[in-house]
Amino acid sequence: MSTELTHFLAKYREHTNGLLEERLIGLKHYNTDLIEAMRYSLLLGGKRVRPVLVYAAAYATGGISAAADDCACAIEAIHTYSLIHDDLPAMDDDALRRGQPTCHIAYSEATAILAGDALQCQAFEWLANSQHMPASAALQAIAALAKASGASGMVLGQAIDLAAVDKSVDLQHLETMHQHKTGALISASVEMGAIAAGATPTQTAQLRQYASAIGLAFQVQDDILDVTANTATLGKEAGADAERNKPTYVSLLGLDGAKHKASELLQQALASIKDFDERADILRQLATYIVQRDH
Amino acid sequence: MSTELTHFLAKYREHTNGLLEERLIGLKHYNTDLIEAMRYSLLLGGKRVRPVLVYAAAYATGGISAAADDCACAIEAIHTYSLIHDDLPAMDDDALRRGQPTCHIAYSEATAILAGDALQCQAFEWLANSQHMPASAALQAIAALAKASGASGMVLGQAIDLAAVDKSVDLQHLETMHQHKTGALISASVEMGAIAAGATPTQTAQLRQYASAIGLAFQVQDDILDVTANTATLGKEAGADAERNKPTYVSLLGLDGAKHKASELLQQALASIKDFDERADILRQLATYIVQRDH
Repeated sequence: MSTELTHFLAKYREHTNGLLEERLIGLKHYNTDLIEAMRYSLLLGGKRVRPVLVYAAAYATGGISAAADDCACAIEAIHTYSLIHDDLPAMDDDALRRGQPTCHIAYSEATAILAGDALQCQAFEWLANSQHMPASAALQAIAALAKASGASGMVLGQAIDLAAVDKSVDLQHLETMHQHKTGALISASVEMGAIAAGATPTQTAQLRQYASAIGLAFQVQDDILDVTANTATLGKEAGADAERNKPTYVSLLGLDGAKHKASELLQQALASIKDFDERADILRQLATYIVQRDH
Repeated sequence: MSTELTHFLAKYREHTNGLLEERLIGLKHYNTDLIEAMRYSLLLGGKRVRPVLVYAAAYATGGISAAADDCACAIEAIHTYSLIHDDLPAMDDDALRRGQPTCHIAYSEATAILAGDALQCQAFEWLANSQHMPASAALQAIAALAKASGASGMVLGQAIDLAAVDKSVDLQHLETMHQHKTGALISASVEMGAIAAGATPTQTAQLRQYASAIGLAFQVQDDILDVTANTATLGKEAGADAERNKPTYVSLLGLDGAKHKASELLQQALASIKDFDERADILRQLATYIVQRDH
């Protein structure tokens, strides 16, 4: 990883952690563990890929401001809620996330359901109360985030994923699933960064193409890591997909095929933003990192 | 019930049903039952109390327009998602809702979790994409709905409720729980109606007082019905609260005490909007209906 990207990632991961740490302070809990469970999952760590994408897209198009903070926190709250619900016994039934007990293990299943519900809501509340964007931009950001998260985006992707277990699916079906399940939120991250920075429609369209490619690349690499990495490095159970008989890029294309696919997607991502100046170098390096990361 | 209220309730219940019926059409499902499960729960019936409150508040303050439609659909989507999640095995574990199988019984637990998640998101998407409000009003509506639904509102109320099972709680604790669990969304209904109609700050403040009183009254009456009505009339299991050893207004105040409390709250509600003209008669009659209903 380049020094520039290492620095950017560390800076905005820390920056995001600080913001998230602050934002739930002062919420009344009335002796329930709801707020604590929300904080537990929100602050469990993670690479903060989506917030970093918000900042990188803002940097590439108009500059980073406090508007990007609101978008970064919102998208991480949505991502975290989706992990909490995805880990539930009725869903993936995962006990480990980022090397720590998942929310329903650390608290209870009921609290995990509620913490996820509240975090989704919190994302929209932060955007609606943003003091750093014109009302029209805040509404655009909310619309983009909602479209990417709900019944036309991430949640639909999870439903497609659930329906695919133990079924034979083809590459197109797998791609549709990932475009919704993970791709939509990755795209929204970049789009919200552009909205926060006041990017032009052309820039936003090119960023969407970029995001679509790195979103899939991210997933292809996840599938590769599921068979090549170990549990300690991943911070979640390695080999879990194969064990559940879930279709993956590796199961459909083979390991070499999947690696080739990831490389192709990287080229598409870079081509999409070839007209951007050097302020898009972070986005270029991020695309490369996504495909080359080992955890 | 007065003829005027009967007409208003029927008209806007039907109107809301029609809107909700239309709004999920065209969403792609990719052979999942996500959209069907969302529609199932959204269209299961129900009194549409919250949408009717949106319309009644709009009518009382500036008139009903398409902006109220967006608010009505959004608040019903939030209410429906909360019912789906509340019925889950890890929460109240209810098999029956409005006389029909609950979402996780009709579909699966995983699908019910996702359908609830998607409906919450849908509420914010509808408001963010409203073509019928100025951007600042839409943002206000989103902020009001989010505050009422999340970690400072309804979801916190559910957490307080969960924590109270099998514990001895006093009246103040019960009131705090209900103010969050059901009161916040009732208040948001009235507030969003006012926002949609462009009400004055004074009107909105008075409507909030009105809503706070009827919100509690609604719950007191629910507790009364839980011991006085039967399952067929209620459309849900009567006596369920007592069976779970949940504290209620009846268990804390006795049946007569609870009836007196409901009556007091009705007077408070009416006093809050005494300055409103005859266009607030629907709100007045609604308050009375909430306390006098038998199901």
